[in-house]
Amino acid sequence: MDSLKVAVLGAGVVGSQVVRLLTEQKSELAQRVGAPLEVIGVAVRDPKRSRHGVPAELLTTDASSLVAKADIVVEVMGGIQPAKDLILQAIANGASVVTANKALLSREGSDLVLAAEKAGVDLYFEASVAGAIPLLRPIRESLAGDKVNRVMGIVNGTTNYILSKMETEHATYEDVLVQAQDLGYAEADPTADVAGHDAAAKAAILASLAFHTKVTIEDVYCEGITKVTDADIIAAEEMGFVVKLLAVAERMGDDAIVVRVHPTMVPKSHPLANVRDAFNAVFVEAESAGELMFFGRGAGGAPTASAVLGDVVAAARNRVTGGIGPGDSSYAELRKLDISHARTRYYLHIKVADRPGVLAKIAGVFADNDVSIQVLHQDGRGSDASLVIRTHKASDAALAATLSGISKLDVVDSIIGVMRVEGERGE
Amino acid sequence: MDSLKVAVLGAGVVGSQVVRLLTEQKSELAQRVGAPLEVIGVAVRDPKRSRHGVPAELLTTDASSLVAKADIVVEVMGGIQPAKDLILQAIANGASVVTANKALLSREGSDLVLAAEKAGVDLYFEASVAGAIPLLRPIRESLAGDKVNRVMGIVNGTTNYILSKMETEHATYEDVLVQAQDLGYAEADPTADVAGHDAAAKAAILASLAFHTKVTIEDVYCEGITKVTDADIIAAEEMGFVVKLLAVAERMGDDAIVVRVHPTMVPKSHPLANVRDAFNAVFVEAESAGELMFFGRGAGGAPTASAVLGDVVAAARNRVTGGIGPGDSSYAELRKLDISHARTRYYLHIKVADRPGVLAKIAGVFADNDVSIQVLHQDGRGSDASLVIRTHKASDAALAATLSGISKLDVVDSIIGVMRVEGERGE
Repeated sequence: MDSLKVAVLGAGVVGSQVVRLLTEQKSELAQRVGAPLEVIGVAVRDPKRSRHGVPAELLTTDASSLVAKADIVVEVMGGIQPAKDLILQAIANGASVVTANKALLSREGSDLVLAAEKAGVDLYFEASVAGAIPLLRPIRESLAGDKVNRVMGIVNGTTNYILSKMETEHATYEDVLVQAQDLGYAEADPTADVAGHDAAAKAAILASLAFHTKVTIEDVYCEGITKVTDADIIAAEEMGFVVKLLAVAERMGDDAIVVRVHPTMVPKSHPLANVRDAFNAVFVEAESAGELMFFGRGAGGAPTASAVLGDVVAAARNRVTGGIGPGDSSYAELRKLDISHARTRYYLHIKVADRPGVLAKIAGVFADNDVSIQVLHQDGRGSDASLVIRTHKASDAALAATLSGISKLDVVDSIIGVMRVEGERGE
Repeated sequence: MDSLKVAVLGAGVVGSQVVRLLTEQKSELAQRVGAPLEVIGVAVRDPKRSRHGVPAELLTTDASSLVAKADIVVEVMGGIQPAKDLILQAIANGASVVTANKALLSREGSDLVLAAEKAGVDLYFEASVAGAIPLLRPIRESLAGDKVNRVMGIVNGTTNYILSKMETEHATYEDVLVQAQDLGYAEADPTADVAGHDAAAKAAILASLAFHTKVTIEDVYCEGITKVTDADIIAAEEMGFVVKLLAVAERMGDDAIVVRVHPTMVPKSHPLANVRDAFNAVFVEAESAGELMFFGRGAGGAPTASAVLGDVVAAARNRVTGGIGPGDSSYAELRKLDISHARTRYYLHIKVADRPGVLAKIAGVFADNDVSIQVLHQDGRGSDASLVIRTHKASDAALAATLSGISKLDVVDSIIGVMRVEGERGE
């Protein structure tokens, strides 16, 4: 059979690994696909820079001409443009596309999906969420006969590394961030990670697939880890919890979803609590399948390239057999509710005056807003007196009202910690 | 588009749930597939028995006539015959087949795969290993561009439940087994589970897929949990380990594999150690992807039916788009070595005489057989004196020779515990 022509856009950490694997595993891949895969070129901006072993003769700066000749286009250049136009060009030419571009997918994913569907070509993007972990394919295909109710994931390795270190070393956020930067786990400008933007992009992609609904990053409530204190971590520890940055997408009733990213207390007995350091994991609750978890490395050149290669093989096989993989149409069109509709438990740490009647006043505010208290501890005396409260499930709106009410009480000095709690059973 | 005709063989716990889901999710499934799925009949042996809500008009005892009319055949009857002949009939007719039959697949899987490949139809069997957990599809498709080095799984819920209870309640194997039988977690005749046969069948299926090699249950070394004592569990606990029944399939050098099922000590920090009760999990080590884990419910009607439905949707989509899923050919043809070639660490608990020179003699036997000691504890005095030893990695053959040598020493009273250790890094 004729070989399939593969164009690679981008020769960074991932692109160079993709080229390496396509070359090294050539004969094995040909057996799996049913036809040889041939890398016809690698598009880069500056062909003079070192390319981690990509042969110089493959390099080109003319991405568009390269795309025009390809059967399969692998886009690992990142960014919105020119990535988007090149992908659309490839689709219009009848080529299949594999991309790892979460920024693009979380903003314009549904346009790309629609274009691919109309053109009858495959658009795969396993590597865009949780790197090497096979996650999107299982959700899209293995759970195709099931109904997903909830997806809850640790999808950003940098923040998980920072939170894990804060937990094990009882260090401050600032100290651990510097450590992480020294080790290369965090960028010099860590905003995209620590502010939750990266996790929010992945949450949008996951939610789109899991709920067959168009979800963009603008639909995702996003709160990073920059305000997590060592006091929060210690309080979690004392209650048998750990703090994780979770991306949560969940069904609300029959026709709506809420998608959110925020620091979260998770009980130590929950499978997500044991996911440490730079590892990623996604926990899925489906109607029939029950609880599932997918765990592995979320980033890195080789792991991400492994996911890209899996997609390339799938797209290539489809071309050989004449089929096309399942699309990701947004036929369900669920409504996207904002965070005020989310229902979770909350942890609150309140500094209070040490005098009789404080508890009654505070409990009154909870009751007025219909927020039920699950556990309450009074700690310290005198100027150190504080209350630690965990609630039953309540809406975000009800909690916001409760917080506002409490902060106005004269017996309350300050609210020193608030965090959502996930992963316990029941209401 | 014309509807696709689905025949279901078997109306037990799984079959009835499959029919329920196909009926309840009819319109959603039609959207995902691109054509409606119609259940044209359910083959049973005795149509008079209650069928968990399967409509009586669908029941038939003539499985062969039903198969002859189907586009997709779902085999959830179990056992070798008539399941095998019906599947081969379906394939010969050009129908796609979805089966959950691990007994059949672990014995004659490669015949079925070959027949499906020749006929150009899909043969899917996600539900045969680890129930609802999407596992075979990720290994087959997502890791298609990677190289799997090791698969290590908790694939039997009954034994995991028993071992978890022995651990948390410090109860004996016999007591927990009775409890598990009362709760329905273990069969009246628990042999298939506790002797490791069920896990061995799944190990064969997993190994075939992961290593593209024909592996049957006869190739799998199999040791159950019936000899695991509370002393083993306590010793593991003291060392920071837990005891799990693991199915392990691993690459040995370039051209061979070993596949084995046995009780194993796993460090508490390993992701598999936290998989408790009836849950299943499979840990995969791949060259590029690194460490992955898949976690979820291994059994039960609804979870298993979810996996079957995912396969039905994939097979149905392939019929609509004219494609065919990736096959599971055994092109790699790796050699299957027996257990004596496996290299693991070992835990040994030896009752010894309390007199000088004991340790030197025992250490001498280890050295003679080239087995290196990693950790050693001497416990107790007088008639209670014992040695607890954990070794570095050694071959099973070397350990067998060591055990034989030790048991012949006059200073050794008896060997009261031996177990393989997995999940630590390094040699």
